[in-house]
Amino acid sequence: MPTISNKGRNMPESPIRKLAPYADLAKQKGHKVYHLNIGQPDIKTPEVAIEAVKNIDLSIIEYSPSAGYESYRKKLAQFYQRQNVNVNSEDIIVTTGGSEALLFALATITDPGDEIIIPEPFYANYHAFASSTSATVVPLVSTIETAFALPSIEEVEKLITPRTKAILICNPGNPTGYLYSEAEIKQLAGLIKKYDLYLIADEVYREFLYDGYDVHFSVMNLEDVQQNVIMVDSVSKRYSMCGARIGCLITKNKEILATVMKFAQARLSPPTIEQIACEAAIDTPQSYFDEVIAEYKERRNTLIAELNKIEGVVVTKPKGAFYCIAQLPIDNADDFAQWLLESYNLNGETVMIAPAKGFYSTPGMGLNQVRIAYVLNKKDLVSAVNVLKEGLSAYKNR
Amino acid sequence: MPTISNKGRNMPESPIRKLAPYADLAKQKGHKVYHLNIGQPDIKTPEVAIEAVKNIDLSIIEYSPSAGYESYRKKLAQFYQRQNVNVNSEDIIVTTGGSEALLFALATITDPGDEIIIPEPFYANYHAFASSTSATVVPLVSTIETAFALPSIEEVEKLITPRTKAILICNPGNPTGYLYSEAEIKQLAGLIKKYDLYLIADEVYREFLYDGYDVHFSVMNLEDVQQNVIMVDSVSKRYSMCGARIGCLITKNKEILATVMKFAQARLSPPTIEQIACEAAIDTPQSYFDEVIAEYKERRNTLIAELNKIEGVVVTKPKGAFYCIAQLPIDNADDFAQWLLESYNLNGETVMIAPAKGFYSTPGMGLNQVRIAYVLNKKDLVSAVNVLKEGLSAYKNR
Repeated sequence: MPTISNKGRNMPESPIRKLAPYADLAKQKGHKVYHLNIGQPDIKTPEVAIEAVKNIDLSIIEYSPSAGYESYRKKLAQFYQRQNVNVNSEDIIVTTGGSEALLFALATITDPGDEIIIPEPFYANYHAFASSTSATVVPLVSTIETAFALPSIEEVEKLITPRTKAILICNPGNPTGYLYSEAEIKQLAGLIKKYDLYLIADEVYREFLYDGYDVHFSVMNLEDVQQNVIMVDSVSKRYSMCGARIGCLITKNKEILATVMKFAQARLSPPTIEQIACEAAIDTPQSYFDEVIAEYKERRNTLIAELNKIEGVVVTKPKGAFYCIAQLPIDNADDFAQWLLESYNLNGETVMIAPAKGFYSTPGMGLNQVRIAYVLNKKDLVSAVNVLKEGLSAYKNR
Repeated sequence: MPTISNKGRNMPESPIRKLAPYADLAKQKGHKVYHLNIGQPDIKTPEVAIEAVKNIDLSIIEYSPSAGYESYRKKLAQFYQRQNVNVNSEDIIVTTGGSEALLFALATITDPGDEIIIPEPFYANYHAFASSTSATVVPLVSTIETAFALPSIEEVEKLITPRTKAILICNPGNPTGYLYSEAEIKQLAGLIKKYDLYLIADEVYREFLYDGYDVHFSVMNLEDVQQNVIMVDSVSKRYSMCGARIGCLITKNKEILATVMKFAQARLSPPTIEQIACEAAIDTPQSYFDEVIAEYKERRNTLIAELNKIEGVVVTKPKGAFYCIAQLPIDNADDFAQWLLESYNLNGETVMIAPAKGFYSTPGMGLNQVRIAYVLNKKDLVSAVNVLKEGLSAYKNR
């Protein structure tokens, strides 16, 4: 049989994929499974977006321009301007999800063996995107003790080599919920400038802030280093439109834009109907966001309060996004997560959690940690954490 | 300023991109531009697909499974079975366009520097996909004199090196319209088996056959070598849904499927709404295809008849897809194409053609050739070819 590429072999598997069959088995046994493992919100998509789809006036579902519809890019620029992010439509290339924006960014700036520094734990697919383009991930370890704050800038600087091309952050962060301060972003900007690197910021959770809207400092707000800055965004979480697969890449660097456009042209265009939905979604009233953020804030508070009631659990209150990393009083979260699905239930209910190992690149890190997404309603969250609590106790005594 | 990757620098630009500003200028001058350069059909999308979008019953536009909706994959398998292509839903991974299927296939089987043999001229983006994944394209020259038939199998075999991983064909072909015979496909299969390579077939034009439906021999119909075969398909042309960005990758090789799934999981899912439209489109009545194929057949006949009336033009009748390569009595098709837009009009009308150079990888090939897409109605085709004819004459006497 002919061979698979090393690239393909080294592509990481999804951290929760191997658990999926156990979740299916639990459901087949008639158990209710609370999914604390996923990033698919239960929040409704804005009606303006759904209505735009229903009222679609097309007889041919044609290609859109490779950079996305100009009308959409213009409205998107206005959206950012209202958030004090100084962006024009020409700075934006619409992509097939934030995923594609990250892939395009990495392919545009790295050759095989080039290095990207990423604060760890990080979104597992960053590793996959780097593998896809044959770049190397250099993890910058952050710890639960400091609530996953940026380590000292000296620690970051130590990791820079002649092969370093960029620092990639997620702000606010998946899986940590950590929100980088303006000071931290500016420290990174200093390094970027000193070594002439790129700063890539995945800001797909930029609206999910629980201590006021004005606390988010975008990399697009940095001065002096805009030629070195690439921002990645997506509608997936903003409008609970994960399935739309519409994101964007934003930069003031014309050479980056021209190169990204070559990758964009090769794949022809982002999806047409979904772009029309996204353009309509920009008219979503502020009340939608106010309600959603209030709901997530309560969920966060509920989740953290409930987790803190469990002896031996370490968790810090996330400032943004809708995840947290919890350290559990166990040795092996992989085993525990599987056991919960395979061998445990509390009155017919169990819980699915994402072992945190998959969010680390450094071997041995995060073995006793899990990522918990608070995308369930409060009642279910309380029930799910109770199952987790009783499960921990039963696991210890198994 | 920080650097762009070699990969990004080497990504080919779209062969027609540099002509686009001249087309815009011609339109600004009030000239009508006949677009013979594009692959966007003017054929309507089937009503069942549009209706499925309009009647969408979703309150959350959620992620679909990474391999695509199971219901869609099952209907798709039935669709292929009706065409005597023996495929099950587990052999199919739904992708974001045929483009992504090709990217996934190449990333799954090649490491940087590995070689892919592609009969030339070929779809320009094959080069881009190979560049994206750092693979090397090895062109297999086919010529207009033989109507772009497969060269002798000895010629193909000469190109095989220890780095060769696959032969990639487009059948029927863009930009040639050439349809590989069963005998040619079987010859390739022999080589694939002898050297344990992959045969990747892009069959996105598989319905566009003008000498009966039974003349297409799919690589999925090959015996003995199914572990070495990957088929790529798309709804873009089949249902005139280019903007849907829904394709698929099909193989019986489980290791390939498992590796492709890792790439698929990293980008999360193909677009949700468009998949629903595609699932509905499978119920498109046969009468739709009969009408579309009859229309294209007439367009082909019209185009070729008109082109053959021009002195010095060499063109052969394509058997499939909706393109042909025409050799013109000029030296430099790039210059001629630009001149048509910039400096010529016949009673306020001009024509945009795609210089064929961009479809060749061998330097110096195709300089006097253009690709013509017959996606215009017959009346416009006749007018467009007349503009081309008069333009050729004026160009010679300029």
